[in-house]
Amino acid sequence: MLPNFPFRRSTAKCTSYIHTANERRLGEVIGTNVAGKLHTGRSRNDQIATDMRMWLRDELDLIEEHLVDLLKVIAQRAKQDIDYIMPSYTHLQRAQPIRWSHWLLSYATAFQSDLERLRFTKKNINKLPLGSGAVAGNAFGIDRMQMAKELGFESLIMNSMSAVGDRDFVVEVLQCASTIGSHLSRWSEDLIIYSTLEFSYIKLADAYTTGSSLMPQKKNCDSLELLRGKSGRIFGAMTGLMMSIKGIPSTYNKDLQESVQPMLDTVKTLKDGLQIAARLLATATIYPDKMRAALSPDMLATDLAEYLVRKGKLVLYIRSFITSLANLSAGVPFRETHHLAGKMVALAEDENKGMDELTIEQFQGIDKRFGDDVLSVFDYERSVELKDATGGTSRRAVLEQLEALKKTLGG
Amino acid sequence: MLPNFPFRRSTAKCTSYIHTANERRLGEVIGTNVAGKLHTGRSRNDQIATDMRMWLRDELDLIEEHLVDLLKVIAQRAKQDIDYIMPSYTHLQRAQPIRWSHWLLSYATAFQSDLERLRFTKKNINKLPLGSGAVAGNAFGIDRMQMAKELGFESLIMNSMSAVGDRDFVVEVLQCASTIGSHLSRWSEDLIIYSTLEFSYIKLADAYTTGSSLMPQKKNCDSLELLRGKSGRIFGAMTGLMMSIKGIPSTYNKDLQESVQPMLDTVKTLKDGLQIAARLLATATIYPDKMRAALSPDMLATDLAEYLVRKGKLVLYIRSFITSLANLSAGVPFRETHHLAGKMVALAEDENKGMDELTIEQFQGIDKRFGDDVLSVFDYERSVELKDATGGTSRRAVLEQLEALKKTLGG
Amino acid sequence: MLPNFPFRRSTAKCTSYIHTANERRLGEVIGTNVAGKLHTGRSRNDQIATDMRMWLRDELDLIEEHLVDLLKVIAQRAKQDIDYIMPSYTHLQRAQPIRWSHWLLSYATAFQSDLERLRFTKKNINKLPLGSGAVAGNAFGIDRMQMAKELGFESLIMNSMSAVGDRDFVVEVLQCASTIGSHLSRWSEDLIIYSTLEFSYIKLADAYTTGSSLMPQKKNCDSLELLRGKSGRIFGAMTGLMMSIKGIPSTYNKDLQESVQPMLDTVKTLKDGLQIAARLLATATIYPDKMRAALSPDMLATDLAEYLVRKGKLVLYIRSFITSLANLSAGVPFRETHHLAGKMVALAEDENKGMDELTIEQFQGIDKRFGDDVLSVFDYERSVELKDATGGTSRRAVLEQLEALKKTLGG
Amino acid sequence: MLPNFPFRRSTAKCTSYIHTANERRLGEVIGTNVAGKLHTGRSRNDQIATDMRMWLRDELDLIEEHLVDLLKVIAQRAKQDIDYIMPSYTHLQRAQPIRWSHWLLSYATAFQSDLERLRFTKKNINKLPLGSGAVAGNAFGIDRMQMAKELGFESLIMNSMSAVGDRDFVVEVLQCASTIGSHLSRWSEDLIIYSTLEFSYIKLADAYTTGSSLMPQKKNCDSLELLRGKSGRIFGAMTGLMMSIKGIPSTYNKDLQESVQPMLDTVKTLKDGLQIAARLLATATIYPDKMRAALSPDMLATDLAEYLVRKGKLVLYIRSFITSLANLSAGVPFRETHHLAGKMVALAEDENKGMDELTIEQFQGIDKRFGDDVLSVFDYERSVELKDATGGTSRRAVLEQLEALKKTLGG
Repeated sequence: MLPNFPFRRSTAKCTSYIHTANERRLGEVIGTNVAGKLHTGRSRNDQIATDMRMWLRDELDLIEEHLVDLLKVIAQRAKQDIDYIMPSYTHLQRAQPIRWSHWLLSYATAFQSDLERLRFTKKNINKLPLGSGAVAGNAFGIDRMQMAKELGFESLIMNSMSAVGDRDFVVEVLQCASTIGSHLSRWSEDLIIYSTLEFSYIKLADAYTTGSSLMPQKKNCDSLELLRGKSGRIFGAMTGLMMSIKGIPSTYNKDLQESVQPMLDTVKTLKDGLQIAARLLATATIYPDKMRAALSPDMLATDLAEYLVRKGKLVLYIRSFITSLANLSAGVPFRETHHLAGKMVALAEDENKGMDELTIEQFQGIDKRFGDDVLSVFDYERSVELKDATGGTSRRAVLEQLEALKKTLGG
Repeated sequence: MLPNFPFRRSTAKCTSYIHTANERRLGEVIGTNVAGKLHTGRSRNDQIATDMRMWLRDELDLIEEHLVDLLKVIAQRAKQDIDYIMPSYTHLQRAQPIRWSHWLLSYATAFQSDLERLRFTKKNINKLPLGSGAVAGNAFGIDRMQMAKELGFESLIMNSMSAVGDRDFVVEVLQCASTIGSHLSRWSEDLIIYSTLEFSYIKLADAYTTGSSLMPQKKNCDSLELLRGKSGRIFGAMTGLMMSIKGIPSTYNKDLQESVQPMLDTVKTLKDGLQIAARLLATATIYPDKMRAALSPDMLATDLAEYLVRKGKLVLYIRSFITSLANLSAGVPFRETHHLAGKMVALAEDENKGMDELTIEQFQGIDKRFGDDVLSVFDYERSVELKDATGGTSRRAVLEQLEALKKTLGG
Repeated sequence: MLPNFPFRRSTAKCTSYIHTANERRLGEVIGTNVAGKLHTGRSRNDQIATDMRMWLRDELDLIEEHLVDLLKVIAQRAKQDIDYIMPSYTHLQRAQPIRWSHWLLSYATAFQSDLERLRFTKKNINKLPLGSGAVAGNAFGIDRMQMAKELGFESLIMNSMSAVGDRDFVVEVLQCASTIGSHLSRWSEDLIIYSTLEFSYIKLADAYTTGSSLMPQKKNCDSLELLRGKSGRIFGAMTGLMMSIKGIPSTYNKDLQESVQPMLDTVKTLKDGLQIAARLLATATIYPDKMRAALSPDMLATDLAEYLVRKGKLVLYIRSFITSLANLSAGVPFRETHHLAGKMVALAEDENKGMDELTIEQFQGIDKRFGDDVLSVFDYERSVELKDATGGTSRRAVLEQLEALKKTLGG
Repeated sequence: MLPNFPFRRSTAKCTSYIHTANERRLGEVIGTNVAGKLHTGRSRNDQIATDMRMWLRDELDLIEEHLVDLLKVIAQRAKQDIDYIMPSYTHLQRAQPIRWSHWLLSYATAFQSDLERLRFTKKNINKLPLGSGAVAGNAFGIDRMQMAKELGFESLIMNSMSAVGDRDFVVEVLQCASTIGSHLSRWSEDLIIYSTLEFSYIKLADAYTTGSSLMPQKKNCDSLELLRGKSGRIFGAMTGLMMSIKGIPSTYNKDLQESVQPMLDTVKTLKDGLQIAARLLATATIYPDKMRAALSPDMLATDLAEYLVRKGKLVLYIRSFITSLANLSAGVPFRETHHLAGKMVALAEDENKGMDELTIEQFQGIDKRFGDDVLSVFDYERSVELKDATGGTSRRAVLEQLEALKKTLGG
């Protein structure tokens, strides 16, 4: 007996030999004579393509649901925690103060874009291959539009060769899933860092951490690490399938069977991941006092520079891109104020003080234009409120983001 | 002097230090005092994100054009060569007769889907990040919608952190490009095989082949091989960037600089590739006689099986999925006729003849239901015409595909 | 109840919670009091790393066996089929005549290199992590070298942090497997093409083909297509794991759990694939007459050019790289003879004849140096015998390759 | 004029048309008549394969040098900073105290393994393809072994088809480079985190940081982020090339040209990256006081549990794997002491004290076996010294690692 790939039973419910099983089962129900007609003008090739699209269609509905749930949790926390102010980070170095809600919503932007793409992808998938035979079409005058209607497809794949030889609809789902995975991975990375003792901004509920077999004091953010790690798994499914498809001739080749396992695996991983992310965020404890304690006056150096810009008599700032340079001519150039603020940072460092502990004289020693009101700059609330343009950190701007999000979610 | 990454000058026109160059040049034109104001409330972070989106937007327009041109060449050839009949292949084994135009249009389906996705992607890209500062937004009450209008953006990125830390718009383009590359690769694979002496269905124009430094008789399809090979290059750009982005914290990290090179390289590769594909197809010579010569009666075994299905008295075939089983009860089950046709194939093989050279008696020796008209089955024109359902090979069905294609192309 | 990743039971025999199971089972056998000591100075982290290395070590032995078996089948066929002459292909265009055995052995070169790398990789894996605790080492003066000896490891991982946080040994196996997969994929591609009706050089045994549900005449090379397709699956496992590992902090992070599934899956796929490849090749039928029939005189154009080179009185050809130019000064420059041979190809094409059917006069019409013996060039046997340098197609050179192969296989 | 891939001039010094340039230049030097003989029995195919191997061989020498330099810097710092004690992290949560040198050397383990693999790879590359012609070998009795000797190759590629169609030697280098990139990425991730204000263990020299165009106070670890990000670029080169090679027929196909660009780009990226990593580490400032301040008594909970294990009268611990369970029967099971230590952690947390601030009574309230000496456990120096088994954190064990490293480096 020669060895052979066990491709007939390999991958769960959706293998390419489901067809024969279908016919057999049908035979049990309605008699083999009629069941034997199942393949009239039909082939395994157009059947499996149809089955996979129908299955994916339903699963994408679930994924969409879970994505929406995650966005709702984000929205809920963003609303409820809007008063918490924390450092933002660029290059993982403290940058400017932001609202915690602003951080939350930065990922909402990413997941919203995933949602839109998912919807587009779902539409792309929902095209009927059935009625294409093995490769050349159907010779019995079948009405494919009618069939599409009955099976809930929006339109037809217009070429029989393409219908049976295409697994790009799986690739598209996996690419979309990889991007969602990438977002979950960055999100987890942030939260893992925020969960360290050094940051201490957030603590996961016990259900989402595990202990150590050796170290009794440990609480590890396993769930977040798995979310981050599993983005690799999804990516591997996507690249693997693209590799399998690479350069094969048109129409059906058995290589395409390798689309089933990555599809099944990715859908499951993604559904689990999105649900876990949502619950994990919903149940985490936030530590606003730690966030607040991490703010320091030097994070307002930009505010100080901008203070000087405003000191120029009448600042009709750039409400428009085109007219901006003209208007700006009134104030002090930012290039210059940036330089002066830098000097203040250095001075404070030399004095081993916070910038807010320097005297007016010290400020004016650097530049005469610093006024008596300069210390009013060192107020974190004021700083986040000043970023009031759309997309910024002021209460109004954050609520505006929340409104936009709600609109996408349709509720 | 310590070594360092030459990241300041590295990647062509679009590096992240273009900003400083901008300001310097502006200073030369309008004076450094005013130019120094360029960065008021702006940072390199939101500027580069804006620049890249604007550049990509324009390039995607060009790519769309080239994709449309390729589709037009396909449409033109499909129309002009509609009479050529050739073998279709599944598993690279001869399957059923098709029109050459049907093969051509099978790739049109793929490229059309690319076109739709490209248009969706372009829309996704066209969101304005400017006005987000380095991370926390803009403190000068800038009107971002007005800015968007002036710069031709459709909408705003609604969160400043997301605006500066997102390179998913590049990933999305590269994923889209990878799928186009995958299509070009399969298309090239087919054409390379059809260009072998063994197949001889097609010959590239001299401009798209090269000779051998050693073998004077050779003509190699280098262009097709490059199209196939460069799909790897595009894929590598996509996977590489996804890897660079993997798991980095939110907002801007220098890792994101690695989005520039793959973006530039992919856009160029894709633009070149699509243009070459179009011209290469437009100028190739087709050999319909070789295609015709490759057809053999056994490729009509399915037609023979379907002939028997029809012999059942009144075949009201499955015009609908749901009612199909009932209707089918009239004819002979395909499972049975498939088996009988298989016997005829074996008999012809034993006799070392074409099936069309067997006698009526030999047919009826296998099954009495074979009528005197059975030899009429062995007509390739009849066979392609019978596949008349939408997506099939009949002249009508192929012209229907062409119509649908023209609609997508907007002309 | 909150949802959570089912990471505790997920991936078969090798999950990271096997440790607890181990301790439980040990408790059943020797009492929980003693079993409870299992983790003294040990942690799940160094245990799982040890388990995986031991498992892989054994599996690589099996993979090596299968690889050797495949090489033996190749060697056997190469010896037995040494008389068959066929076209070689570059760019899938007919190039020069070769022995079928030469084609077979070209893949032996690839698989041999895989074998060497596999052996190197196995050595790399065989380093003991146990005795590293969770991260900081062992506090009970354990003798790790003794432990290594007992467990069959060659050496120790010399740093405890590295020992628990490293999955590069899995990556290395997967990279190695990906290259083997790549070889199987190219090998399959060749054989799929050689199995087409158009080439007809080879036919798989029935056990390695499948029929069509629609087309009774079809025999598809499913096994080869799966070998080709599954190279994508292996590649996906490799890229996925590399993605999971990307940029995580040092030591153990839960992300590393994602190394188990790709490892298990790849080992299985590779073991199956190698066995199938070997049996498939052993049982295939070769058609030397079809190979012979595919040879044509224009494939000897290079021989014709080289004939002219030799016509230069004394050709002391380049037995050495450095002295070659001097020696070559005796003969006619190849650049010139290549050109002349090209003219003969064109002439034959114009006359619609084989080059061997042209007259001596026609040859001499192109160049006076063509002698009366020129037609002796058009002998395929002579052509393959002339390539007698090591690595060439002469019987001697092919047997030399076989000898070298046997040496690697150790028998 | 038809468009075409500019493949003739595209990729720098190493394109496949260098051959023609070679011949032309040679013609200028020694006359076109002799230069025209360059291609006698040689083709572009075996020439380019030879050129690439020679080039890579030299570049790998340089990469090896840079890798050795990096290891030397690590060794030097590990020796010089051996007294600094810091927290180790698993799951990015503080685990047990280690020496900073131990962290340094954990990456030395990884880079050493890279070094060994690099040396193996270099050997693999160093096989001569020249003398294989275009595909079928050389017909002039060339002595390839002599040629190999003169060109510095260790052995021959034994099959001409394999010699011209193989780019796996590039794949192998890129896989090797990807793993090095992966190590650099994890290393950078650690250092980026250690450079945050929250951790503050290390500060890069100014040459390896950059400022912000908006925030005067910022110092960003751009160099580390680029090292981390560029691991994606290298990975993309590897996956891209593997994709280009996927499933193409044997021997030379133009797709293989796509091996040049990723090779050149990766070699450059890797050489730069390794040098930067070495200098960056050599010039960084370490803050041992911050490391020390980050240690806390709960990180010694494992030591506390191990203290109890030792309390069992005679602990002849597992010097051997096999005899370990018997010997262990003397002490208290770790499973139990782990549990007790966990209780002490909880108690300290409840009391809002360090564990070292609890009274003997409180200890004994949890378990009578805690002796008067229990507080001696809370000594970080003692803790790292106790991990004295090979691979551990004691001074001796760390110096042992250093010795092993020096041996590998050959100095």
